[in-house]
Amino acid sequence: MRLYSYWRSSSSYRVRIALNLKGLAYDTQPVNLLEHEQQSPAYAALNPAQGLPALVLDDGSVLTQSMAILEWLDETYPMPPLLPPDPILRAKVRAAALVIASEVHPVNNLRVLTRLKAMGHDQADTVAWMKHWMVQGFDAYTALISPSDDFSFGATPGLADLCLVPQLYNARRWGFDLAPYPRLVAIEGRCLALSAFDAARPEAQPDAT
Amino acid sequence: MRLYSYWRSSSSYRVRIALNLKGLAYDTQPVNLLEHEQQSPAYAALNPAQGLPALVLDDGSVLTQSMAILEWLDETYPMPPLLPPDPILRAKVRAAALVIASEVHPVNNLRVLTRLKAMGHDQADTVAWMKHWMVQGFDAYTALISPSDDFSFGATPGLADLCLVPQLYNARRWGFDLAPYPRLVAIEGRCLALSAFDAARPEAQPDAT
Repeated sequence: MRLYSYWRSSSSYRVRIALNLKGLAYDTQPVNLLEHEQQSPAYAALNPAQGLPALVLDDGSVLTQSMAILEWLDETYPMPPLLPPDPILRAKVRAAALVIASEVHPVNNLRVLTRLKAMGHDQADTVAWMKHWMVQGFDAYTALISPSDDFSFGATPGLADLCLVPQLYNARRWGFDLAPYPRLVAIEGRCLALSAFDAARPEAQPDAT
Repeated sequence: MRLYSYWRSSSSYRVRIALNLKGLAYDTQPVNLLEHEQQSPAYAALNPAQGLPALVLDDGSVLTQSMAILEWLDETYPMPPLLPPDPILRAKVRAAALVIASEVHPVNNLRVLTRLKAMGHDQADTVAWMKHWMVQGFDAYTALISPSDDFSFGATPGLADLCLVPQLYNARRWGFDLAPYPRLVAIEGRCLALSAFDAARPEAQPDAT
């Protein structure tokens, strides 16, 4: 498998963690978002949405959208599971994951920040914008997860943790104060102590600068 | 089951269609987004993310995030299926659905538009903002679906169509020109000819004004 990835892309980071957790070997093909490589004709042919990541399977199939890739990985390589077996608990794990993946990340990604700047906003405005959505998202996430498990749900990391950890990386990058979120930071610490998460860190990627 | 819904909420509309397709009876509990009822203490206790929809099951379980609710519905009430059986095709259907659910809707919903206005933008700016993301999303969606099936994928409506139809309603509401997207409009027409979609239309809801 080949993963089209950018070291600082939250959604690429999610999929890197999952591939590592499942013990799957993959090649990394860096796509430099800052140089707009995701808009190149070659990449747009691969992924018409011109976003990261894209996972190219050995049969040539191209999978896009990180949350769809994560569901495919869990269906195809069930161990260790990213979702619990109980249907209602699965829905709760997916809901927490989607608070990050659908409510925080999409409004804070590079294309949105670029658009805000084109509308006349400066760096301070865009950082305040990002922090606004992170507060809402982290508050909701904290209320939706289990109050005392080692991970967001249960004793092993799952789909929600895969979304949380990259978002916390992003939060720190922009100077977001995580002091009000000790439970999230504790979960992050347990995750990053695992080699699957550690190897997926932005700094460990071949395109990190 | 009780669905907390707002007539014009795209994500509520998705879940209404799915409940109808599955033949499930439900009560509608309107939540007026324009009057900020989603931020009331009672609703925030139900859904800490203060978004719509929320589905309360007969055992009292509260499910949130429309895409998580749709996955739960498909797992719990498999017929008719919202996703095909083949894992790679499932991933492709989910990816198209997520282009709408993760890349268009989250940047165009009421809370984002409210924030833009608080940053000094007028109605014309916010409408231009919405149309910008719709062009990107509809272009990508068109490229990701099957080129000639009756629906986005195959001969019956599925998860992607459930996201597309509400987004096209939203597009028309804001005067978006759909002429460049005849395939999407044709799929929409086939969907809305079905009673499950027709009964889920915003105009058919008890809180429509």
